Amino acid sequence: MSISLQQARQAIELARIKATEIAVPVNIAVLDTGGHLKALERMDGAPIGSLDIAIGKAKTSMLFGINSELVGEYMKPEAGAYGIIGTNGGLVGFAGGLPIRKDKAIIGFIGVSGGAVPQDFAIASEGAQL
Amino acid sequence: MSISLQQARQAIELARIKATEIAVPVNIAVLDTGGHLKALERMDGAPIGSLDIAIGKAKTSMLFGINSELVGEYMKPEAGAYGIIGTNGGLVGFAGGLPIRKDKAIIGFIGVSGGAVPQDFAIASEGAQL
Amino acid sequence: MSISLQQARQAIELARIKATEIAVPVNIAVLDTGGHLKALERMDGAPIGSLDIAIGKAKTSMLFGINSELVGEYMKPEAGAYGIIGTNGGLVGFAGGLPIRKDKAIIGFIGVSGGAVPQDFAIASEGAQL
Amino acid sequence: MSISLQQARQAIELARIKATEIAVPVNIAVLDTGGHLKALERMDGAPIGSLDIAIGKAKTSMLFGINSELVGEYMKPEAGAYGIIGTNGGLVGFAGGLPIRKDKAIIGFIGVSGGAVPQDFAIASEGAQL
Repeated sequence: MSISLQQARQAIELARIKATEIAVPVNIAVLDTGGHLKALERMDGAPIGSLDIAIGKAKTSMLFGINSELVGEYMKPEAGAYGIIGTNGGLVGFAGGLPIRKDKAIIGFIGVSGGAVPQDFAIASEGAQL
Repeated sequence: MSISLQQARQAIELARIKATEIAVPVNIAVLDTGGHLKALERMDGAPIGSLDIAIGKAKTSMLFGINSELVGEYMKPEAGAYGIIGTNGGLVGFAGGLPIRKDKAIIGFIGVSGGAVPQDFAIASEGAQL
Repeated sequence: MSISLQQARQAIELARIKATEIAVPVNIAVLDTGGHLKALERMDGAPIGSLDIAIGKAKTSMLFGINSELVGEYMKPEAGAYGIIGTNGGLVGFAGGLPIRKDKAIIGFIGVSGGAVPQDFAIASEGAQL
Repeated sequence: MSISLQQARQAIELARIKATEIAVPVNIAVLDTGGHLKALERMDGAPIGSLDIAIGKAKTSMLFGINSELVGEYMKPEAGAYGIIGTNGGLVGFAGGLPIRKDKAIIGFIGVSGGAVPQDFAIASEGAQL
């Protein structure tokens, strides 16, 4: 069962509380299990360009069913997976995109961007467990 | 001054209340004055394909500073503006995209899609006046 | 010989004087004979979305070496040239794009958009004769 | 308040004076705060392909609110932000794109390309302070 709007808003709310707590304005995107946007918020002060990155992280996580930074392992030059980075309209392989789980089942994906990578990851993680 | 997240959420809330009242699940997109997404929600049951239409309506309204259906007047075959429909990455010229005003000033743009065109317009209009 | 920056600025200046005279803020684009932007100005108050239209008109004129509205004749549904409108990345077939001539030779192309079509044409025409 | 045409022309004029002084023909693009082209000039002799680079630098600066070369820090392979370079339709992360400030407020963005990178930066910097 794919994510409901109420759940998507809850995921964003949890992420936003964390972002506000550590004072890092970010973009937060939530996708359903098919990879389509369900909800999105750009906090005041978050870089405009990070919006597409937030969506890209969530999309990348959806496409492979794992965290975006794990997909990123295949994008390292030494991984030899030439061209993978440009597939699917462009992958985004660093931390901040991950599955949203409820009762262990994946119900959607969240992507966060706007802060330092560990901050994005910490914020996204808050929204990933409903 | 461009739209704040609080204002964007308020616009979406007002639109969603109307959509719920008339029982029409829709996609609601809010852009800032530069045409960049500020917030977005896809109500449960709204067609996935209408999401891009909602964004397109808001974008079209932003690009010309008027309601999307007024831009659509120039897209009618008899208007003779051949090709205008494909400019700016593709315009969307029917009702549901309009400026969001606060104290008469335009602070952003809203786009709604998922119902019949008059329904989309009615829903978007609710969110267009803060 | 392709248009110099000085000539492009002169074409824009002539068009802008006309636009100011009739009080119609427009976008003005000048391309070289290869179809590449040489100079561009968006007057204060001109619709943002008309910028791409101005460039499209000039580009369409360049691609066929004639006024954009003449190319538009082939875009009418009854012309039967199915699909022509989507070629070359999208043609724009209404008035406001035309060759810039100096001593009868074509040295570049000008495109104007933002007003009513006859206004755009009148403004572009001013910049088309150096 | 976003940049006026008069201010955009002034920024280009200042940049062009510098470019002429060091004898480096360049492309100069000025965007408003929403990332939309306000004015553009390609100096005689500037590479055609640098025009898109000039726009890309200014766009990249706009998207993140900082100089384009600072965004480029995240594009280095060792930064680990795999795929960031392809977001937002393609970022351009080397020097020559920066905010235009007037009385300390950002009113737009300038992008310069056509010379060596330090030259592009020096030229753009001249136009960045009105």
